[in-house]
Amino acid sequence: MIRPWELLGTRLLADHGIFRVREDYSLSPRTGKPHRLYVMESRDWVNVVPVTAEGRVVCVRQFRHGVRSVAIEVPGGIVDPRETPEEAARRELFEETGYAGEDIVRIGTMNPNPAIQNNRCHIFLATGVQREMSQSLDQGEDIEVILINEHDIPGLIADGTIDNGIMVAAFHYFHLHRVGPS
Amino acid sequence: MIRPWELLGTRLLADHGIFRVREDYSLSPRTGKPHRLYVMESRDWVNVVPVTAEGRVVCVRQFRHGVRSVAIEVPGGIVDPRETPEEAARRELFEETGYAGEDIVRIGTMNPNPAIQNNRCHIFLATGVQREMSQSLDQGEDIEVILINEHDIPGLIADGTIDNGIMVAAFHYFHLHRVGPS
Repeated sequence: MIRPWELLGTRLLADHGIFRVREDYSLSPRTGKPHRLYVMESRDWVNVVPVTAEGRVVCVRQFRHGVRSVAIEVPGGIVDPRETPEEAARRELFEETGYAGEDIVRIGTMNPNPAIQNNRCHIFLATGVQREMSQSLDQGEDIEVILINEHDIPGLIADGTIDNGIMVAAFHYFHLHRVGPS
Repeated sequence: MIRPWELLGTRLLADHGIFRVREDYSLSPRTGKPHRLYVMESRDWVNVVPVTAEGRVVCVRQFRHGVRSVAIEVPGGIVDPRETPEEAARRELFEETGYAGEDIVRIGTMNPNPAIQNNRCHIFLATGVQREMSQSLDQGEDIEVILINEHDIPGLIADGTIDNGIMVAAFHYFHLHRVGPS
């Protein structure tokens, strides 16, 4: 059986706004030796798969600075303080696309990377969404809204057009929600 | 159409071994204003879904320092210098579990988080794997091997038992490979 490591010490190394870097000093229960670990801390994230009554997924295209290229994703972002994940999902959907819908349900919660991140990411499904107003973008955002037929999503993942791993996971929860985990 | 941001400057802030932190200064094509961005750089990663002839997925349980709890995953790790992703997948499978198999195929490549990471993660499927020797763990590893029936995986994702987002994405590529993107 795998036992937890004893935390001998921890300290904050840097705060970069959207994430902070933490250094842990922990004891391996297998070897009895201490190890230094680095962790990226951040607030929880949300992503929302928004589907119109016609079966179209409201996606966003934006330039992503990690890979310095444009990615196709579903709306999402960071859960603000004093906000529930569902409120964050509705807010990000509305701000990034101008779409909204009454019916929203959580279809999954995951750790984006439990090895080196401490946060969780909540995945929502919003159905019957409609365009209610234009986008309301932050200074740092430049987002194009595109509608993709829900049945085209698996092919776009298989051919690499959609290659953001968090989106691939989100669409897996969407798939499991649609067909059930049979 | 979404245009790329012009990179005005970049510098390395910190090197933590498994990842480095980069600071970019880039110009928004929408507002014409510069923004400061933080990116976590690292080498590419691999994950491998190893399946025995009996349809059992060879999984690993290990303590994950980001969330400070135990996670169920498939084998994986960092691609070493002068190593192909496939070689890394075979090596990690063998080191972490003692299992090996002749037939290995890449079923997906994704960006784990293109917003704040620069690397890619390659997903492999290894079929007909068999236990050939005991594990060969690094000082910093403490890993338990467990076999899970491939048909039980969707239920374990749906109920949150498997909640590492990279694994959820890996199992989505596995699903698409098995059923085809219909």
